Amino acid sequence: MYKLYDFLPSGNSYKVRLLLTQLQIPFTRIEVNILNNESRTPDFLAKNPNGKIPVLEIAPNQYLAESNAILFYLSQNTNYFPSNLFEQSQVMQWLFFEQYSHEPNIATSRYWISILGKEKEYKQALEQKHILGYAALNVMENRLKKQDFFVGKTYTIADIALYAYTHVAEEGGFDLTEFPYIKRWLNRVESQPRYVSISNC
Amino acid sequence: MYKLYDFLPSGNSYKVRLLLTQLQIPFTRIEVNILNNESRTPDFLAKNPNGKIPVLEIAPNQYLAESNAILFYLSQNTNYFPSNLFEQSQVMQWLFFEQYSHEPNIATSRYWISILGKEKEYKQALEQKHILGYAALNVMENRLKKQDFFVGKTYTIADIALYAYTHVAEEGGFDLTEFPYIKRWLNRVESQPRYVSISNC
Repeated sequence: MYKLYDFLPSGNSYKVRLLLTQLQIPFTRIEVNILNNESRTPDFLAKNPNGKIPVLEIAPNQYLAESNAILFYLSQNTNYFPSNLFEQSQVMQWLFFEQYSHEPNIATSRYWISILGKEKEYKQALEQKHILGYAALNVMENRLKKQDFFVGKTYTIADIALYAYTHVAEEGGFDLTEFPYIKRWLNRVESQPRYVSISNC
Repeated sequence: MYKLYDFLPSGNSYKVRLLLTQLQIPFTRIEVNILNNESRTPDFLAKNPNGKIPVLEIAPNQYLAESNAILFYLSQNTNYFPSNLFEQSQVMQWLFFEQYSHEPNIATSRYWISILGKEKEYKQALEQKHILGYAALNVMENRLKKQDFFVGKTYTIADIALYAYTHVAEEGGFDLTEFPYIKRWLNRVESQPRYVSISNC
């Protein structure tokens, strides 16, 4: 059975829990409290030398890190990954957009404000994160004006990856009122079969 | 023929030029000077709403953005992408590592110091970028102590993606003297068939 090295509040971990649940693949969760540096112990660094969760243990001593790489691995030959090469590459485009332009701004704001409770200490840095985070939300809003899901006509791992931190963006101080297409898409994701919330494991 | 919307000094663009050249696929380069905001014009934003180069035009009105998504697209069913799913997913892991933990620190330092010439203005921010950039280099060094290339036994798009900004890390103020395995790997990449340098187009 897969083992998932996981931190419950992490959106990156949640992506993997959500896909595993939707694929009806059983797994064991192992909580790694990153706030206590549990992802920096020698034992954990042997699993992922980059010291980050989530990590999927596929077999003894066979580990895969990076949430979006794990989504790629699990989704192959399922309905959550397109069969057409151009659409597959568009999924990749949105996964890299998520990790470069979205997560470092929206997830980091949420981490500082709602996980660490240090909004005041990070006030200045948050201003720049909010400018870049809103820019990412605008790119998403414009895409969702044209289509129901990010790639093709159906729900894929691109939606899972972008949903993870967008649906809790308000915990990072982002106001989604002006993003009606994103809000409708969030509802669409939440109505998918076997959807589970971030606090559900 | 493919059109590549490109900026010659960009490592992200270079990744695509290098792979296209190694695959012996002809392409037309269209220079987009990001320093003049040419990637923020309405015309360019119609191609990539995220306003970043590189963008590959695959067919009229069919565009793909994000350098590592383009590498994925071009490398399918070639020797530059493994055939085994776990190794494919490890390639993905290193591509996401590159965009999350490496490029934002090493490429950004190079951009501030050597492209914009503003080392003094960014002095404080560069300190943090250097800490995180050296951490990424350490992860790479430890991997390369164990194997010649990042995934499996041969050169893949994971090596191309990580080579792009590592081989010019010194332009971002990084000293590679203490990374002998990285230096040997750089030579190994440079000895691959049809290798071209970043300034060659």
